Amino acid sequence: MLQQFKVSKDDEIRVSGEALHKTVREIFEKLGVPADGADEGAHVLTMTDLRGVDSHGVSNMMRVYVEWFQEGRLNPDPKWTILRETPAVASIDGDAGLGIIIGPAAMRLAIEKARNVGVGVVSMRNSGHLGAAGHMAMIAAEQDMIGVSMSAAGPRVLPTYGAEPRLGTNPIAYAAPTRNEPFLLFDVATTVIAENKLRLAHRLQSELEPNWIARLDGSPITEKAVAPDRDDYQLLPLGGTREQGSHKGYGLGLWAEVMSTMLSGGIPSMLDTSQQFKHHFVAYDIEAFTDLEEYKDRMDAMLQTLKATRPAPGHERVIYPGVLEYEEEIYRRENGIPFHPEVIQWFESVAGELGIEPLEIMAVTKAAESQPPAP
Amino acid sequence: MLQQFKVSKDDEIRVSGEALHKTVREIFEKLGVPADGADEGAHVLTMTDLRGVDSHGVSNMMRVYVEWFQEGRLNPDPKWTILRETPAVASIDGDAGLGIIIGPAAMRLAIEKARNVGVGVVSMRNSGHLGAAGHMAMIAAEQDMIGVSMSAAGPRVLPTYGAEPRLGTNPIAYAAPTRNEPFLLFDVATTVIAENKLRLAHRLQSELEPNWIARLDGSPITEKAVAPDRDDYQLLPLGGTREQGSHKGYGLGLWAEVMSTMLSGGIPSMLDTSQQFKHHFVAYDIEAFTDLEEYKDRMDAMLQTLKATRPAPGHERVIYPGVLEYEEEIYRRENGIPFHPEVIQWFESVAGELGIEPLEIMAVTKAAESQPPAP
Repeated sequence: MLQQFKVSKDDEIRVSGEALHKTVREIFEKLGVPADGADEGAHVLTMTDLRGVDSHGVSNMMRVYVEWFQEGRLNPDPKWTILRETPAVASIDGDAGLGIIIGPAAMRLAIEKARNVGVGVVSMRNSGHLGAAGHMAMIAAEQDMIGVSMSAAGPRVLPTYGAEPRLGTNPIAYAAPTRNEPFLLFDVATTVIAENKLRLAHRLQSELEPNWIARLDGSPITEKAVAPDRDDYQLLPLGGTREQGSHKGYGLGLWAEVMSTMLSGGIPSMLDTSQQFKHHFVAYDIEAFTDLEEYKDRMDAMLQTLKATRPAPGHERVIYPGVLEYEEEIYRRENGIPFHPEVIQWFESVAGELGIEPLEIMAVTKAAESQPPAP
Repeated sequence: MLQQFKVSKDDEIRVSGEALHKTVREIFEKLGVPADGADEGAHVLTMTDLRGVDSHGVSNMMRVYVEWFQEGRLNPDPKWTILRETPAVASIDGDAGLGIIIGPAAMRLAIEKARNVGVGVVSMRNSGHLGAAGHMAMIAAEQDMIGVSMSAAGPRVLPTYGAEPRLGTNPIAYAAPTRNEPFLLFDVATTVIAENKLRLAHRLQSELEPNWIARLDGSPITEKAVAPDRDDYQLLPLGGTREQGSHKGYGLGLWAEVMSTMLSGGIPSMLDTSQQFKHHFVAYDIEAFTDLEEYKDRMDAMLQTLKATRPAPGHERVIYPGVLEYEEEIYRRENGIPFHPEVIQWFESVAGELGIEPLEIMAVTKAAESQPPAP
């Protein structure tokens, strides 16, 4: 993650994965989510924070999820409907269930199909936010499959040359297993920058790079600027400007829309903003295509070669998608997940409101101890 | 296409699609390709030129294909082997057949599987160049399916922060049908810029934008510069720099490598440069997921909404991927395909060498008439 999005070391309060999982599970249960679903949702969020994907972990998302449950926008106990199904594919109405809770189940359906016929494809409409799409892909990778996951919502992102937002930040993720190397894990918004990262940057008052966002009239902001509030900018597709390839980011976001929304019989957010999130999950059974053991050896050899690449001037090493998440998970399992004091304060207030035990703190840095939490 | 890649109007010689198809087919036949394959390859190249994708049409690719056939690197009469197969997936050894010729057949196999079980996935190793990946995706779209196609080769592209090329320009393409609107057709290299476009720019001596390419030591060239020869630069992944999202382009290129190479049991070019191109084809039968007629109406509504987007200052209109190709095809079917005189000269020499009729010219602009062809 770029420096702009990191919580300052002077400000952090650390929490163990176990403690976070316990509190998040209890919050979901208090909101009416059955035990299995609450546990699933807590697992997805905790893994996301352990992997260092703070933009999609509890600090950005948990309070939003709680609001949506309390407003009735999310169904705590959804019963999904399979709309159409074959041995290889299915489309599902998610009954307004939160994506981080029912997404893993949809991916497991894709995995089951892949186990039978080599590939499984599941598209889902009428669901809530998916959280980190990469987590869903990893569920397949852990079963010796290649996993793909996409999601669509919005509209928050400008099409190339446009002044009105039409797409969501529509993420695309994939994961692939290895023998000994960290799994390949790719999970990106199809914008220059994920919206959740911009919110994080706004909270941290960090500077944004040129061409990350546009003015409200659609013109890219070509100089560095402090992250504005979400009503004061438009998001640009990956590439930023046409010259730098924004038509590619735009087309990738539209792809996620087609696979998630169009295949599930949903309505794109640009046509109906009342519609929920839509998702797309694919599992490819490697064994159905080729020898799994040979695949794993070759995957390790390829990833080792990428890591052995001579770095360009000014850089220390070359990595591949998933390496940082793997390293961060090891570090955070030992040292805890760092949160801004404001997030901890929110957990305190929600625990009081719902009548659950407070989130257990693992460690507090001196600066945070000596300062009051941010308002 | 950006202005940098357009043949100057003063310099063009125009050829009809029919004339181009005839000559290309005859060249392939003279090189030993059976009639069906020669016709398929000529169709792919002609459609690519009609759609305005000059970077992957005859001007950049035909002489390379001819060389590869003459050197024995390509097999003019390949018999592919299905390595593994299920009702939904297959992996194939392409027997060194040219991708533009056997790719459409692989996509048709995916379509047949999709017709039976809702989705078909085919990965292929040991093949030649795929040409415009989007053409393969369009074969599925023309059958009321969503088509996806990827390809992997190289190594020509730097990983983020790297100084040694590891990936090919590894394109990702998809196509989706509509009711009345131009089909959605997306086809991009996972680099900032397609290598074939850089070669075109070098031939036209056009200026490149900042961060399109890197020096040989891996550092991005951050100012505008005339397109160098292909041995004097490195390619950067989409995004260009890490700050602008090059890790996303890098991960997308790696995705094409995994789906094309790893699933077909191929060896990535970074580990073995003697290996040929690898490809990946997917067809999704829309009807297996949702109501096809409702899908088509909604797709048209979405695409019309994208086109109706208010443009940002300085821009005339907003489009979606496939609109320019659709408009260009209408224009070129009427006015012919424009070629640089150098390309026409090459056709003359190869026609003489192989003993076929010369390429029929449709029109020549005054400037080209009065000047000798470029050496």
